[in-house]
Parts: sequence; structure tokens; C-alpha cells
Amino acid sequence: MTTPEPSLPRDLDQIAREVKAHIENAEVEPLLQLIAPLHPADIAETMERLDRFEQNFLFDALEPEVGSQVLLELEDATREDVLEGLDEQRLGPMVDEMDSDDAADIVGELDEEVRERVLQQVPEEHRVEVETLLTYPEDSAGGIMALEVPWVRKTHTVARAIEMIREHHRDMEEISEIFVVDRERRLVGSILPVELLLADPDALVADIMDTEAVSVRPETDQQEAAAVASKYDLLNVPVTDDRNRLLGVITYDDIFDVIEEEEHEDISYIAGTGEDEPAERSVMKAVRERGPWLMLGLGGSIGSAMVMAAFEGSLKQHLAVAFFVPAVMATAGSVAIQASSLVVRGLATGSFALQGVPIVLWRELRTSVLLGVGLGILLGLFAFVWMGNGALALCLLSALGLVVINAALSGTMIPLALKRVGIDPAVAMGPFITTLNDVMGIAIYLLVVLLFLSGQAPAAALQ
Amino acid sequence: MTTPEPSLPRDLDQIAREVKAHIENAEVEPLLQLIAPLHPADIAETMERLDRFEQNFLFDALEPEVGSQVLLELEDATREDVLEGLDEQRLGPMVDEMDSDDAADIVGELDEEVRERVLQQVPEEHRVEVETLLTYPEDSAGGIMALEVPWVRKTHTVARAIEMIREHHRDMEEISEIFVVDRERRLVGSILPVELLLADPDALVADIMDTEAVSVRPETDQQEAAAVASKYDLLNVPVTDDRNRLLGVITYDDIFDVIEEEEHEDISYIAGTGEDEPAERSVMKAVRERGPWLMLGLGGSIGSAMVMAAFEGSLKQHLAVAFFVPAVMATAGSVAIQASSLVVRGLATGSFALQGVPIVLWRELRTSVLLGVGLGILLGLFAFVWMGNGALALCLLSALGLVVINAALSGTMIPLALKRVGIDPAVAMGPFITTLNDVMGIAIYLLVVLLFLSGQAPAAALQ
Repeated sequence: MTTPEPSLPRDLDQIAREVKAHIENAEVEPLLQLIAPLHPADIAETMERLDRFEQNFLFDALEPEVGSQVLLELEDATREDVLEGLDEQRLGPMVDEMDSDDAADIVGELDEEVRERVLQQVPEEHRVEVETLLTYPEDSAGGIMALEVPWVRKTHTVARAIEMIREHHRDMEEISEIFVVDRERRLVGSILPVELLLADPDALVADIMDTEAVSVRPETDQQEAAAVASKYDLLNVPVTDDRNRLLGVITYDDIFDVIEEEEHEDISYIAGTGEDEPAERSVMKAVRERGPWLMLGLGGSIGSAMVMAAFEGSLKQHLAVAFFVPAVMATAGSVAIQASSLVVRGLATGSFALQGVPIVLWRELRTSVLLGVGLGILLGLFAFVWMGNGALALCLLSALGLVVINAALSGTMIPLALKRVGIDPAVAMGPFITTLNDVMGIAIYLLVVLLFLSGQAPAAALQ
Repeated sequence: MTTPEPSLPRDLDQIAREVKAHIENAEVEPLLQLIAPLHPADIAETMERLDRFEQNFLFDALEPEVGSQVLLELEDATREDVLEGLDEQRLGPMVDEMDSDDAADIVGELDEEVRERVLQQVPEEHRVEVETLLTYPEDSAGGIMALEVPWVRKTHTVARAIEMIREHHRDMEEISEIFVVDRERRLVGSILPVELLLADPDALVADIMDTEAVSVRPETDQQEAAAVASKYDLLNVPVTDDRNRLLGVITYDDIFDVIEEEEHEDISYIAGTGEDEPAERSVMKAVRERGPWLMLGLGGSIGSAMVMAAFEGSLKQHLAVAFFVPAVMATAGSVAIQASSLVVRGLATGSFALQGVPIVLWRELRTSVLLGVGLGILLGLFAFVWMGNGALALCLLSALGLVVINAALSGTMIPLALKRVGIDPAVAMGPFITTLNDVMGIAIYLLVVLLFLSGQAPAAALQ
């Protein structure tokens, strides 16, 4: 079946309507016929359009092998709902159908008690695999690798290697690459199935394999593993232990997921949305996820209010100074997020490590001096034309320059400091640091402007 | 060669030092021996550590087939430099070494005149392919697909299919999946090399192939093509014409690149960094990229200054109102970016289309009312405790509530509107919209607070 535009929502809208009708009339057979030609990802997407009763009805009608794939494709919130409605008799066989990494993901989402009961339904060999994977942190290479890894020995002939795959790895549905190990199961290379297909059956695997076997350790951060895959264009990232023995493999589809997840994480740090998902249905959950970030920002700006209150006397005298507080805040915030997003990206891609901290700081300092002076001149000019007040204009110029330099340096140094203490530097782009910058910026601005204006001409400096 | 930690910068730092030493002493042979075992991606990363003379020296020493791979792995700025130093005699053979999609990327970066001269060095068949690919927009499926696509007929036996690959596709180094077409070259399925390896040689391809052949059109946006790959866990995304004839293929490594590129693009929209790269060396380029966004923000906040100036009389009377301007701005900005980042993400992943605009708007409205009232109460309470002023507290409560609702709705609707008129909705998270929100927020706040305070108790409302 060829699907020219597989992801168009309107097809699935139509299917969802038909599914609803079948469920209302309790027509199981027509329902299954309707669903049968769909890809599990499309069944999952259809389920997002159903209410909870319909979701459970449809899911219960699926074969375990289809159900297990659909489960993996559901949005987190829907999967939680569906898992809640499943008992271990039904979930056990589904978990058994899954590759070990997917099984560990699903089982890891269950409450401890349910988890035990479900694992009792899984044959021992597979259960031990899943339990092994659950010991690795969720966002490490070990936490996302699969233990189903097709391998052959380097001393095998091509014919023997094909035999090995036929005997031992037949049940792995999607073999895209075969790893080559030595007698101690140490990784020494890799080979593509197509190469076995085209090679002389008597050739030795060692002679035709690709010897550039880049691998990661199970404790490697998943983002780093994805960066390795992307840098070396790897179809699969093998995971090896500290003696380089092959443990498992991270496949390309998991790499897709990691890159997307990290992107989502970075943007949710910046925006302060927590794990709030666009398709979430609960308003209360959205409030709980987003509220704390907003309160943090509000708390910070109360700091700004107190700084301004401390300058109350001068502000009353020079009210125009207050008019430019938003300009100072906006500029400080923008400069800081520009600087920190570049540092965060530089750290993530590794291109930053090339140059070292002093060089990057020095570049950022020069850039920010130029930007600060330029923006200061613009704001000063505007204030002069608008208010005809040269003193105020000069004050704005120098204050904005200092604020911009401060914001650029803190925007550069904070992510570096976070990285050093083991916190994701992307946090630096979020509301907490932004707020901190606001307060610092306003304090610097008021200090410079008001001290200067008061010192220079106590009363008449501003109308 | 097994590299346990392939991406550690310190190894390449050491190598870069040795490379520099060899170049200084003009020792070409030892230089090549040092570089020989490195992956092209590592040679490229080493080159980032060299100055321009050293880069050219090293690059000139590389074989065309290695050079062509290194060229593809360089950072944009470095590649530009290296390309500038190459004549068509040297670049032609490198372009010929590349797959059509990579060749089109490199040739597309050249000035028109140089491009012509380079293409004259490429054998006609390959040149025509590259020229075909250059006709597609850079960020479409056609712009990133390769024309080297391994295919067999559905009527072939497995043995004949293997023969086909041996005869026609031998030169494609990395075949991970084989597409199945009918007599008119229409896509009807796909098959993994390992399946051919394990199947009965007399079986028909049509009987063992995977018939779920999802494809995209050449004009499909690259981000959408990547979403299809990620949704259906596709190793390769086939590209077909409007009669479903196979044109080319987007491979997993290009999908990695697209997902990363889109992430970078979104974050650079938010941060307003343009194409400024962390590893860029030129301060002036950074100023040029980042300056305009900052000027936009500054211009917007001058709008805020004018709004405040319009309320000058009342502000002078109720100075405390000015103290809370940063709180209003920060909250409005945060709420707007939360809302727009969710909409942008929902649009990108497609999960948003499930629910439709009215449902999302309604949810956002309820969420924002709760958040607005909650934050308003907090701010009001704080103001009451701090200043003992009940009227001000009530004003802050209601004003902040309105500002939050306004920010949430504009944060939701602006990306939707941008999408509708064909602009990347991620722009809505950037400085322009943020600034617009600031100005609206401040105007709403001042209007509510000052009109209320003036109407209620002209003089004594605030100390």
C-alpha cells in the first residue's frame, strides 16, 4: 500500500470518525478491518482523537503484537491512561513482543508493584534483559540501547556469518548493520548486510568489514551518543563495556528521538513550559507545569521593584529615567539570551571546546562592547531628540553600554558554570537567569543614571 | 581501530599540535601518516583548530576522495574559506566523488561563475544529476535527497534482485535499504538487504517485501520529511513524483542533520542570533547578525517608554505603579513565550492539528485565566504587605490578570497566523513578538491601574 501523504491529519480525522461510529455500535469486526491496513503510528495517532472509553475499546481489540507497537507510539499522557487500564495478563505478552529497550521503557513507566506482576508474565530470558536495562539511568546510552544486537566473529567466512545470522538473529526483524567481534566478544568492526550479500562466500569477515568501530559506554549521556551518531553518520551506535565488549546497540530511530527530545527540552527550558505538551488536555496540569516558572519570574521582578523603590526619591525627581526601564530590561534580556544560546549550542555540538573559554569570553566581550555602545548611542540619540536632554542622553548611553556588557558576560559565564557543576547549561536560557539579568540590569542602570544625574545637576537635570 | 571515546576534544587538540609542527617544518609524509587513520569528521574537526594557512596546507595534502569527505564535514565558515582556496581542477574531481546530494550542496555554495567552471570538470551523467538537484529549493525534500537510490523490480526473484544490485548499485557504498518498483518505476515497497540474504533465492521480491512504502514529494518541506521519518521510524525516506515514480531518497544521516538544523533555527529565532555560530571568529559578523534583533527590541521598548510618558502625570502621583512595570513585562513575556512555544511545537510535531484551533485556544484561555488570577493574587498580596495599600493591590491583581490573558492569547494566535501566511511560526518566539507583547502589556497595565486609581481616589491612593 503506497501512502502518498501519510501524515495528513484529515485522513485520520475521517478514520477516527468511523472508529467512533463502530465503537458506538459495538461492531468489533468492521472496526478491526478498518484498522488493519494502518501503520501502528497511525493507529496511535487515531487514538489521540478518541475519548478514554473509545481508546480502551480500540486498544482491547488489537492483537498483542499490534498493541505492543501502538503502545510505543502513543503520546505520553495517552499511554499512561491506556497502561492504567491494562492488567498484567494482557500487558505481559505485549512487553514480551517488544525489543528489550522498548520493553524497559514501558515497564519503567509502571508503578513498582504493577511492574513486578507484569514482569512475572515475561519469559525469564527476556525478563532478565529488561531488568538489566532498567538499572541504567533513563537518559544514558545504557538506558536507550537494545540488547538485541546482531554480531558475527571476525574469523568467520562470509558464508558462515550468513549462517550465524540465520540461526541466531532471525527473530530480529530489522537488522540494518552487523557488528563484528573477536573471541572475547570485543568489538572490532562492523559490516552491512549488503556487503555480505555481494561478497565472495569464502572471504573472511575480517577482510571486508569496516574497521572504524566507534562505540560509547553505557553511562555515556544519550545526547553525547546522539552527537557521535550524527558526527560519524552512524546507522547504529554500538555500546561497549570498559573492556570494549559489545553490550548493545542504539538504533537510528532512537537517535531521532534523542535529538528531538533534547530540542524539546532546550526550548522548554527557554520558555519555561516544563513537560507541558501541546496536546495535553488538562488545564490544571498546564497550570502546574507553567506556574512555577512564572512565579520565579515574578519573584525576580519583585526584586526589580525593590531596587526601583530604593531609588524612589531620585526617580520622582527624574521620572523620565523610569520610562527607559523597559528598554534596559529588554536589551539586557536579549543580549543575555543571545550569548547563552550560543554557548549552549557550542557546548552541545562540541564546536565550543575547540576554542576554549578565554577566547570565547574575549570575543563575546568585544562583541558586547560594540553592541552596547551602538545601542547606547541609538537610545541616547532618541532620548535627546525626544526630550532635548543631553545629560539624560549621555547617561542612557553609558548605562546601556554597561548593562549590555554585564548581560553578555553573565550570559556567557552562567552556562559554562552550570556545565561545570553538572547542570544542563540550557537552563541558563530559562526564566531564572533571565530574571536575574533583569534585576542586575535595572540596578546597574539606576545606579549609573541616578548617581550621575544627581551629582551633575541636582534639580533641573530633568524637567 | 577501536576508538573508545571518539569525540573527546583533547585527542584532537594533541593531533592538531602535531599537525601544526609538521606543517611548520613542511613535512608532508609524516603529516599524511598522522592523518591517515582519522575519520574524515575528525580531520575536519582538527582543521577547525588550525589557522587558514595551515588549513589550506593540510587540505591540499589530502587525496581527492578523503578531501571530498572532509569538505562535507567542515563548519560552514571554514568550508567557505577552504572552497575559496580551491581551483576547479582540484574541486571538480572531489565533487565527482560525492553522492549527488552532497555534490549539489557544495556546488550550491559556489558563486555562479565558479560553479560553471567546476561542473565542467564533472562527467556529464553526474553533472546532470547535480544540476537537477540544484533546481529544488534548499530546504525541500528534493533539495536534500540523493539520486543514487538502489531499486529492484517486484517481479524479480531474490536471486535476480541480488544480481541487479551487484550489476547496477555496486558503486553505492552504503546501501541500507532497497526500494521495490513496478514496471513504470512506481514505488510499491521496500526490502532490507538482510531479508534478501536470508530469503529463498527463488522467492519473489513482491512476496517478501514490506508493502508499507511511505514517501514524500520533492517539494515537501524538509522538516515534514524528517517528521515522517521519525513517525514511521524510517531508515530512508523515498521521494516520488506525483505519479509515485521513485526519484530519490533521503537517508538517515540527512534526517539527523535536518532535525538538528531545525532545532538550531528555532533556538536562533528565540534568541535572535541569526546565523551567528558559536565557533565564528569574527566579532563584526556577530555584531551584524545580532544587532538588528537588539535594535528591534530597543525600538519596541521605546514604544513602552512613550506609553509610560503618556501617563506621566499619573505616574508622578503614583510612583509605585512604575516599580511594578518590570514585573508586568517579565510576566507578559514569559506567558507569551510559553504559549507560543507550545503552539510552535504542536505545529511542528503535528499533534496540534489533532485538536483544532478552537479547542487549543479555549484551553489556553482557561489556563491563562487561572495563571493570571494566581499571579495577580501573589503580586497583589506582596504589594499589600510591602506598601499596605489595598487599592494598589487590587489594581495590580486585576491588571496582571488582563495582561496575562492578553499575552497568552497573542502568544497562541500569532504563531497560528504566521503559519497561515507561510512564515515559520517559530519566529513568534523571537524578539519582535516579545517586544510587541511588552508594549501591549505595559499599555494595558497602565491603563487599568492608573484609570482605576485616579477614578477612585485622586490624590491619596498612594502615599
